[in-house]
Amino acid sequence: MRRDVFTADHEAFRKLARDFIEKRVVPDYPIWEKAGRMPRAVFEQLGSLGLLGTAIPEEFGGAGLPDYRYNVILQEEAARALVTLSTVRTQLDVILPYFLAYADDAQKSRWFPGLAAGTLLTAIAMTEPGTGSDLAGVRTTAVRDGDEYVVNGAKTFITGGLLADLVIVVARTSTDPDNRRAGLTLLVVEDGMPGFTRGRILDKMGCKVQDTVELSFDDVRVPVANRLGEEGAAFGYLGRNLPQERMTVAVGSVAQARAAVMTTIEYVKERKAFGTPVASFQNTKFELAAMSAEVEAAQSMIDRAVLDLVDAELSGADAARVKLFCTEMQARVVDRCLQLFGGYGFMTEYPIARLYTDARVARIYAGTSEVMKVIIAKSLGL
Amino acid sequence: MRRDVFTADHEAFRKLARDFIEKRVVPDYPIWEKAGRMPRAVFEQLGSLGLLGTAIPEEFGGAGLPDYRYNVILQEEAARALVTLSTVRTQLDVILPYFLAYADDAQKSRWFPGLAAGTLLTAIAMTEPGTGSDLAGVRTTAVRDGDEYVVNGAKTFITGGLLADLVIVVARTSTDPDNRRAGLTLLVVEDGMPGFTRGRILDKMGCKVQDTVELSFDDVRVPVANRLGEEGAAFGYLGRNLPQERMTVAVGSVAQARAAVMTTIEYVKERKAFGTPVASFQNTKFELAAMSAEVEAAQSMIDRAVLDLVDAELSGADAARVKLFCTEMQARVVDRCLQLFGGYGFMTEYPIARLYTDARVARIYAGTSEVMKVIIAKSLGL
Amino acid sequence: MRRDVFTADHEAFRKLARDFIEKRVVPDYPIWEKAGRMPRAVFEQLGSLGLLGTAIPEEFGGAGLPDYRYNVILQEEAARALVTLSTVRTQLDVILPYFLAYADDAQKSRWFPGLAAGTLLTAIAMTEPGTGSDLAGVRTTAVRDGDEYVVNGAKTFITGGLLADLVIVVARTSTDPDNRRAGLTLLVVEDGMPGFTRGRILDKMGCKVQDTVELSFDDVRVPVANRLGEEGAAFGYLGRNLPQERMTVAVGSVAQARAAVMTTIEYVKERKAFGTPVASFQNTKFELAAMSAEVEAAQSMIDRAVLDLVDAELSGADAARVKLFCTEMQARVVDRCLQLFGGYGFMTEYPIARLYTDARVARIYAGTSEVMKVIIAKSLGL
Amino acid sequence: MRRDVFTADHEAFRKLARDFIEKRVVPDYPIWEKAGRMPRAVFEQLGSLGLLGTAIPEEFGGAGLPDYRYNVILQEEAARALVTLSTVRTQLDVILPYFLAYADDAQKSRWFPGLAAGTLLTAIAMTEPGTGSDLAGVRTTAVRDGDEYVVNGAKTFITGGLLADLVIVVARTSTDPDNRRAGLTLLVVEDGMPGFTRGRILDKMGCKVQDTVELSFDDVRVPVANRLGEEGAAFGYLGRNLPQERMTVAVGSVAQARAAVMTTIEYVKERKAFGTPVASFQNTKFELAAMSAEVEAAQSMIDRAVLDLVDAELSGADAARVKLFCTEMQARVVDRCLQLFGGYGFMTEYPIARLYTDARVARIYAGTSEVMKVIIAKSLGL
Repeated sequence: MRRDVFTADHEAFRKLARDFIEKRVVPDYPIWEKAGRMPRAVFEQLGSLGLLGTAIPEEFGGAGLPDYRYNVILQEEAARALVTLSTVRTQLDVILPYFLAYADDAQKSRWFPGLAAGTLLTAIAMTEPGTGSDLAGVRTTAVRDGDEYVVNGAKTFITGGLLADLVIVVARTSTDPDNRRAGLTLLVVEDGMPGFTRGRILDKMGCKVQDTVELSFDDVRVPVANRLGEEGAAFGYLGRNLPQERMTVAVGSVAQARAAVMTTIEYVKERKAFGTPVASFQNTKFELAAMSAEVEAAQSMIDRAVLDLVDAELSGADAARVKLFCTEMQARVVDRCLQLFGGYGFMTEYPIARLYTDARVARIYAGTSEVMKVIIAKSLGL
Repeated sequence: MRRDVFTADHEAFRKLARDFIEKRVVPDYPIWEKAGRMPRAVFEQLGSLGLLGTAIPEEFGGAGLPDYRYNVILQEEAARALVTLSTVRTQLDVILPYFLAYADDAQKSRWFPGLAAGTLLTAIAMTEPGTGSDLAGVRTTAVRDGDEYVVNGAKTFITGGLLADLVIVVARTSTDPDNRRAGLTLLVVEDGMPGFTRGRILDKMGCKVQDTVELSFDDVRVPVANRLGEEGAAFGYLGRNLPQERMTVAVGSVAQARAAVMTTIEYVKERKAFGTPVASFQNTKFELAAMSAEVEAAQSMIDRAVLDLVDAELSGADAARVKLFCTEMQARVVDRCLQLFGGYGFMTEYPIARLYTDARVARIYAGTSEVMKVIIAKSLGL
Repeated sequence: MRRDVFTADHEAFRKLARDFIEKRVVPDYPIWEKAGRMPRAVFEQLGSLGLLGTAIPEEFGGAGLPDYRYNVILQEEAARALVTLSTVRTQLDVILPYFLAYADDAQKSRWFPGLAAGTLLTAIAMTEPGTGSDLAGVRTTAVRDGDEYVVNGAKTFITGGLLADLVIVVARTSTDPDNRRAGLTLLVVEDGMPGFTRGRILDKMGCKVQDTVELSFDDVRVPVANRLGEEGAAFGYLGRNLPQERMTVAVGSVAQARAAVMTTIEYVKERKAFGTPVASFQNTKFELAAMSAEVEAAQSMIDRAVLDLVDAELSGADAARVKLFCTEMQARVVDRCLQLFGGYGFMTEYPIARLYTDARVARIYAGTSEVMKVIIAKSLGL
Repeated sequence: MRRDVFTADHEAFRKLARDFIEKRVVPDYPIWEKAGRMPRAVFEQLGSLGLLGTAIPEEFGGAGLPDYRYNVILQEEAARALVTLSTVRTQLDVILPYFLAYADDAQKSRWFPGLAAGTLLTAIAMTEPGTGSDLAGVRTTAVRDGDEYVVNGAKTFITGGLLADLVIVVARTSTDPDNRRAGLTLLVVEDGMPGFTRGRILDKMGCKVQDTVELSFDDVRVPVANRLGEEGAAFGYLGRNLPQERMTVAVGSVAQARAAVMTTIEYVKERKAFGTPVASFQNTKFELAAMSAEVEAAQSMIDRAVLDLVDAELSGADAARVKLFCTEMQARVVDRCLQLFGGYGFMTEYPIARLYTDARVARIYAGTSEVMKVIIAKSLGL
């Protein structure tokens, strides 16, 4: 079906992204997977091409085009090439919005040029051991001491934490036992600050080109000048960006499901079983046809939601619907695709295996399918 | 999510339809279900309100607005009220397009006023006993004899056949054993023509407000002036309207699934089990949340496809994707809704039971899910 | 796979049942469906053949073989012939156990001969309007007055209530607000007792050969001699028979799912689509193969559970597992079977349509799938 | 539900296995996973305890108890401890049967003691690059030259190939173009034979404690004394063992699904989300209850089939039903379990992640789900 999401400018950007991915990402991807990260140099190349700074004002080296569709294109093009851009997605879709919305002028000057250039890498540290994504349970503290906050605590499941130069830490600046959602503040901890250490690299079943680490903070002194936004306002800030964060996962899910279908179609046309191409079996045809219908449904939903998001009209409940449906769809589709590869589907040398293991986290992070259902149910008055 | 399908004109039409359905359809619907049909008078009322003739040129009493969205609205509003408009859907979405596309001037004058007014009811007779929807297998013959065709044969599964004043019959006018798809012609058989009889009314598990009958043709003499379009061209004609026919089923499926969710939400809020409202169980919330996400995905797909259809840009394969996905979604959703009604779900006095049994045919008619998969697979090069 | 459930005696009984069903049930079944019940005469014929009294002591005209496997055979043979034995299942599997366990000698003499002979038909009245299957909510009262109880209240969803000569009524004989499960008593209300009236026959989407009615009790005077078991003990009695009641539904589900697969296999071998037998499509083969595997899994589970039940070793949680799995399996299988019938699947003249609509209640009655999950979860310590 | 599969002897064996696994397998399992294999020493320990030789005649150091149930117990106990016994399953269930059935006396003397002792490790080499599991496509040749066969060709996906001392190679000894299934012969290639080399270790998404390798044969001279059974008879031999091979996968699937449910129950009881234990959510309860029912259904099916297999009464089609159902069940269950772990489910440090990735191959190897459906469909006359 037609898509009415992108303009000619977007398509020009898409071409740029496609070329870069084909030439610079695809060839070395297996090496990065083994290393567990994408090299810093690649972030810088992405930056120098203008792929990281579309939303950053021109005066700081960006393009001054705060348009979520550029981020969509990066994910679509990566998926199309059967890779991901590692933590770029997190940086652009999850973290950058906090900088754009809450950085003061001094912070903009300090950080925006590096963010646009790909020389400053970022992470966001919300989740803590034992409390999961429940912000009310955050136990990392930040105690004001003159012009500094003294931060103590531990964070886990931090995507990109290994290379991050700047880590937005969600810390508790005051404790109101009756309202544990209040008193949370965003502080930017910088690489090298005394007491800030990176812990274990967590071993995951998929998403191997992104590092996921534990971080710990032991009397880390963070200047007040590194606070993003108001003290105690973090809960609201975090909630406001959730729809985009969830859309981002959904956009990736649909792009990757589509890519899985495409690579499977290629495979079944080439591959023979019992003397005939796998593509010639009715089961193969029906499986791929059913998946194709599912992918198109999800694509329509994404496209609708992207336009709503761009117009600031996407509700939290609708973002939850999109994430729930698209990630569940991805799971069904990728599993069925892999099956059509037979034994090769289990081997990591085929991208389908990676698409399968990568996909498993989509129903979990940025809010599990269960959390999405809670949100949707509330919107239905249930 | 937002919908961008309808204009103010459409919404005015929607209001008209909603009022009519509420006042004239809902109260008597149970009676019509028992009778197995909607009375002729209701068709005439629909006609006099302009609800049947939007696509018919003004000179013949219509509105001259050939816009599929008016048909969408009729289905959406009927579903919203937990009813259907009986065979109106077939008449407007499946049959009228043949009249609009292929009627010559004389035929327009004879039939269009009645079609717009709701005084001429119609049916289309394709399927034959034993051959199903395989047009290549049509055995009903029409042999030219001077200014007439002599028609012999039998048709089955004819929606609206009982009341139809005009029946478009797909008949074989020549036999080329090498190309059984050629040689098919559309003839309009009229009520009262000698040799044209209606057979058994088929008993169905659902869709009880629409009759489905067998028709037989025994030396029926049909004037050549009743031929729609060219002799031998029917196969192409029928193929050309299939995307709209399939969209129509899908539009109904989504509208009815949405209605099922809405009526279930109302029910679970009122109904208690073990002393608490059914709505208070997490299972209830999660079920309805998941369904809500599915319905929204399907709605996005429908909206995209409606706009494509209106612009004559909807491919046969995409129409197949839409029908496959939306009807399968409806089946899942309506089944889960019914479950939340407990024992009442099995009782026909609750609309959910009707929505359930009505829904079963959606995956079958206008091409089964399997046929949709065949079409989609071809478009994928499989 | 092999079954190790039945002995030669059982197989002899099976032959008898099969012959009777073929000759006396199948031919008239469509008539009974329209009438909404099986005639009394058929119950008497079943009785005279010994098919109703296997569990009743010989001195009262039964066979003195209290062995649940005979009941299994009746369901299997009915399903095999694509029919049901109307309320016989309820009578033998749900109601008779209460008579067998709790009738005193006088009651045995009065009722057992008729139960064995098929001249006394029965029903059990638990569910009340608005409270569903929650026994704690029973509001029908029975107030002791000398040698009688005076019964007042209303019951709904009563299977077989229309023809029942004896109705076991669950009534409240005392009210302890702190323990609403106590104070329930079983009373046998007889046809003709003043104040006992049958209300509406409920219209259901399926199971049309069984009546389902509302009953009302207006100062019905029931002799204490009609009390089954102890006053106030009904809650325990009812709980004790639940595993068998649930097994019974599951046994029927598996037998009917198996029958659906068999009749579908026959159909697809005969029926052609696009010039070739439907059976020749790989999709048809794969669908039926997958269903066949599901049916066999369920059959193994049933066979295991039947032996456990016969040995009084089947826990309530395991009965819940069996009901949950087997009824959900039936739903999946019957839906897929119906799809292979195409348009004919929607027509009630084919048994598959009946199997489909009949099946829908299996996930609901004798405890919904949701109630089964509650029970199972408890047994898992959750 | 009760199980009637095992005797006291089996249970004694189970205790032995359980102790060994707990003490010797569980502690080092993570190390073996990283190494990609279980050390030879562990095979020898298993052998010395008598866990490998139950089926081998006593004169060769075995127990002389050819009873498949011992193999079942090994898988059940390994799964219970959330590990596998690496290639022991392949050796005992897939390979040993060929030695037992077709080894001549000289071969028995040479190999059986080592097989029982765990000092001779084995593999079977069927699959070839590009032809998959289609035996008709085997291209590896064995040309008779005096008392030797000269073997040339390549094999892939060889489980345990890295450590194997003996590899049963399926080779083509004669070419009849009309019957490509004939002319296949089993030859035992030994470690160290000139021209026999092991190629790449294939990287898999799961089953990491088993190696899977490519093998190549370049003019390998294999003595005729190393031929298992008759020349040209391999196709029949391989077919005869398929039911057991498929049962083995199914047994593992059910045992692992059960273990997944158990470990998830433990997890949700401990783990809190939003301040309450995950176990307290109705969704958690319902998910685990539904899974528990599925696992019990599959267990019943397995138990039935194990007894049939032990009595040599299990048909190929029934083995296919069991494999299809049990492996699909495992996939559903393990996926749902993992979801309840939230983010931890994606981390390989939790066994659920391993259970998830290990499980993916079960629907593929020993015949894909699609191949199972082909076999079942044939048995249904389709």
